Parts: sequence; structure tokens; C-alpha cells
Amino acid sequence: VAEPLIECVPNFSEGRDVGVIDAIAAAVTSVAGVSFLHRTSDADHNRSVLTFAGAPDAVAEAALRAVEQAARLIDLRHHQGKHPRIGAADVVPLVPIDGISLKECAALAHALGRAIWETVHVPVYYYEAAALRPQCRRLEDVRRGQFEGLSKAVETDEARRPDVGGPALHPSAGAVVVGARQFLIAYNIDLNTQDVSIAKAIARAIRASSGGLDCVKAIGLMLEERGQAQVSMNLTDFEVTPIDVVFRAVEREAARHGVSIARSEVIGLLPRRALEQAAAHFLHWDEYSPGRVLENRLSNGL
Amino acid sequence: VAEPLIECVPNFSEGRDVGVIDAIAAAVTSVAGVSFLHRTSDADHNRSVLTFAGAPDAVAEAALRAVEQAARLIDLRHHQGKHPRIGAADVVPLVPIDGISLKECAALAHALGRAIWETVHVPVYYYEAAALRPQCRRLEDVRRGQFEGLSKAVETDEARRPDVGGPALHPSAGAVVVGARQFLIAYNIDLNTQDVSIAKAIARAIRASSGGLDCVKAIGLMLEERGQAQVSMNLTDFEVTPIDVVFRAVEREAARHGVSIARSEVIGLLPRRALEQAAAHFLHWDEYSPGRVLENRLSNGL
Repeated sequence: VAEPLIECVPNFSEGRDVGVIDAIAAAVTSVAGVSFLHRTSDADHNRSVLTFAGAPDAVAEAALRAVEQAARLIDLRHHQGKHPRIGAADVVPLVPIDGISLKECAALAHALGRAIWETVHVPVYYYEAAALRPQCRRLEDVRRGQFEGLSKAVETDEARRPDVGGPALHPSAGAVVVGARQFLIAYNIDLNTQDVSIAKAIARAIRASSGGLDCVKAIGLMLEERGQAQVSMNLTDFEVTPIDVVFRAVEREAARHGVSIARSEVIGLLPRRALEQAAAHFLHWDEYSPGRVLENRLSNGL
Repeated sequence: VAEPLIECVPNFSEGRDVGVIDAIAAAVTSVAGVSFLHRTSDADHNRSVLTFAGAPDAVAEAALRAVEQAARLIDLRHHQGKHPRIGAADVVPLVPIDGISLKECAALAHALGRAIWETVHVPVYYYEAAALRPQCRRLEDVRRGQFEGLSKAVETDEARRPDVGGPALHPSAGAVVVGARQFLIAYNIDLNTQDVSIAKAIARAIRASSGGLDCVKAIGLMLEERGQAQVSMNLTDFEVTPIDVVFRAVEREAARHGVSIARSEVIGLLPRRALEQAAAHFLHWDEYSPGRVLENRLSNGL
């Protein structure tokens, strides 16, 4: 079995003050064994997203330190932005990459939540695979009313109170939504057509919301510069619906419209397993296992 | 750039005496940082093949120690077997896996050859990418006449003398053929037909020797137990002809005979790059690079 590896993609309610975002990022990189992969800030949203990965305990420690910095440096009473939020550190998802299950990530999220309350004194909600109550599964449900509305709601509505700590929100830092979810693959397929209605029709045919493939969100849009229509997708669980199944479905639907695929691309990063599984499926290599990859044998010390 | 990683697949002229093969394998595992991946012995061939991998210097040291043991324990004057051989340690190929070029492996082969002569006093020929002379490129040309014939030939024919050491072969251990070559992928595709003539026709259509794909060897044969015909292949350079190109070519040729592909499989191991490249090609993901795989970022310490 591979060394357990997880990713954390926390969102912070500051997208303009680089000094604040730097301080939060520095809290992450202060933990040995954590690889800082990516950061992005949006001034309109007034929000930043950090991406880092490593061994589960190291990643959880880095997330705790980042939440601590965010609570110290961000005051939601003076925060404005287009993106809904309830906390300085708004949402902290833990994502299994290799050698660890979603359930184990949920257990780690619970430990992280307790540590956040004990150390930083900001209350915590658990969402997605870490949710303790059905009404907290979806992030948008937890976030309803945002910081301002939720601060009031917890005074009277028991059902809306935090899972850990509180019941009042932190006066300046609000609350943190901590959880576990599968890796999300952002995947786009460009079509050899300028007719965006074909991309829209394909998106409707393959997405989960209209009875298509499980765990696939899709829209059709036009790439003006390329002069090509695109099916733009989020694959929310590549174990349920692998990337090659999505590719084949789009290829098949496109063929019904007499259109071929120009190219495809994954936005950002994807887990190695997603790519190796796709290759094995394409090749009809039924007996593939990760142990057949030479390097996977080495890292396991065989 | 990834840490350089190579594989070594030496062949030894002993396939019956487990004690001797154990001693040679123990010489390999005595080197820290070398991963022992596989061993196989054939009594009819009276020959064993070991597979190990690791950092280039560690692998070369392990190969040297294995050759030393083989020269000490195997006496070709008393060796009989079906497989042609000129040495106790018969052939020692070094194979680039990641972060190292074929040319660099050839340079390492030259250093290993010199060390074998200096330490073990067995003369060395260089073959394939490490060959210093065209007549030594192909292993079968070096091995012509086998131990008995070559021992005689070197007395009179300068062109057949070793590249390092000699000119006489070692009286009991013969000579070693050291070289560098690309990773060989053994790849089979099973067809939904009992007609072996279709597998043979596809093999002829796609193999290099009859004007097909570069670096592909192929035969058609019958899998009696499964009741399916198989195209059995060696891909001698997956950088030149990737595995997905081979799959597509077989799929296309099979379709001309009205036959579909039942399954495919890689025998043994394959390098990660071969599988990730195949997935990217299948997906028409033109801008793929190994840096897009999350785990590849981690190992590079980003």
C-alpha cells in the first residue's frame, strides 16, 4: 500500500491584501513535509484558495496553522466581496489522493475541527463526507445567510448551530466549514465545431443533473478565440465515473451530431491514479493494478 | 526533473541450482537503495534473469557484485542449456526508466564494463546503445559461436575480440555483454475470434519487420484455453511507438476483419511514463506534461 497522501484546498476571505495571504501561505509552508502546490486570489470575490498536499497529519497541522493566521488577520465585519462566506477561513476540504479512504479523511476532518475550536476558538461545521447531520452535507446550506445572517440565526435556531464550539460565531472570524470530499477534476473537451448549441446538447446529454453520468457536471460554451465549442466539466468523483468514460460519452454524443473532438485538457492537477486508470480502461487492460507500474513497486520498497 | 532511475535485467547461465542463483541475487540486494523487482529461472534454458532498479550508481554497483558472484560460482565448461550464452554473467542491459537518457545509460554501461574487467577480470563486450562497433550492436552477433566458439575465434579474429580486457575469454566465466537499451514492453492483445489467421494477418500488418510500426515485433498465436486468437508483441521503444498507437493499429486492423478486441495486457511491469503518455494520447490531451500529475509535483519537492 502507498504512503497515505492527502490534499487540502482551503478558501480564505481575503483576495486583495497580498500581505495577509502571504502570512497564511507562510503558516502552511512552516510545516515540514507539506508541499505547497498552488495559490490563487480573486479581488472581486475578495477570496483566496491555497492548495497543498502531503502526509495526513502534516496537512492537518498546516491547515490548523493557516486557519489560526486567517482568524488573526481577517475581520469579517469589514469584509466585502461577491463570494458567499461565513468565516475568515471559510471552508477547509480534505481530499484523499492515495493510500487513504474518503472515510479516513472525514475522521481527520473531525480531529482538525476539534483542534481548531480548542486552539483558535472559532466554531466549526462539518460538511460533505464529514457531515454529522444531513442539513450540513451541502456547503451552500451551511453558508445560508452568510456571516451576518448565520451570526443571528445561531441565537435562536438550534439546527443552525455549529457542530463543535459556539453556539455563537467568533465575532470577527465567524466559523469554519471543515470537511472531506473526493478530488474534483476540472476537465474540458473542445469540439471541431463553431456551433455552441452542439456543446450545450452534449453537456445536457452527459451530465448527472439531466440523467446522464453520475458525478459529472457539464455546460456547453464557446471558445471565441479558438472558434470552437467546448464541453466544460467537473468530475466530482473519478472513482464513480472515470475520465475515460466521460471522454467516450462526449465522443459518442458528438458523433451523433457529426462532430469530432479537437482536444481535451485537465485544468490544474489530477491524481496519478485517475490517469493510470484511464489508460488501463482505454487499453481494455482488465487485470491492471498499480503494482504493474514499475515505479509503484519502488516506492513500496519491494 | 525526477531523480534518475534505471533498471537492470541481467541474464546468468544457471537455471537449475537454486543455491547459485540465491547467491547472485543476494549480491544484488546487498547494495543499499536497490529494489529487487523480479527473478525467474528456466531449467531447460539453464538460465536465470534478475530484475532490479534504483539510482544509477547503486544499480551499477549491484550489477558488478552479481557478475562477480556469477564468475565465481558458474563454470561454463560444465554448462549445458538450450539458450545461447558466452558468459557466466551473459548479458547485462541497463535501461533508463526516468530522469536519465539512453545515452547516459550507455556511458554508465562503459564504466560498469571497465569495473568488471578491473575487479572480476572477465572481458567485456558493449552492445546496443553502448556498442562501440557496428558489429557489436546486436546481441546475437556478439554471441555467435557461443562460449566455445568465441573462445576460439578471439585467438585469430581481431574483430571478435572484447572491447575491454582479453583478448582471451575468461577460462570458466567467458565474457560479459554489457549495454544500454530502452525498456521493452511485452504487450498482448486478445481478439474476439478463434481464427488465428486473423491474429497472424494483424501481426504482419503492424510489425516493423514487414513495414509496419517502428520498434514493434509481433506474432499471431492461439490461446487454446480461452479460445481466442492473440497478437503477442514486444514494443522495443515506447517513446518511438507508444502503447496507445499500437492498440489503435491493432483495433483498426481487427475491424477490417470484422473482429473486436477482447482485452489486452502488459506482461510484467511497465514504466509509469508509458501509461501516463498513453492516457494523454487517448484523451487527445495535447498539452499534457508529467507536471500535471499531482504526485509528480510532490516528488519534485515543489
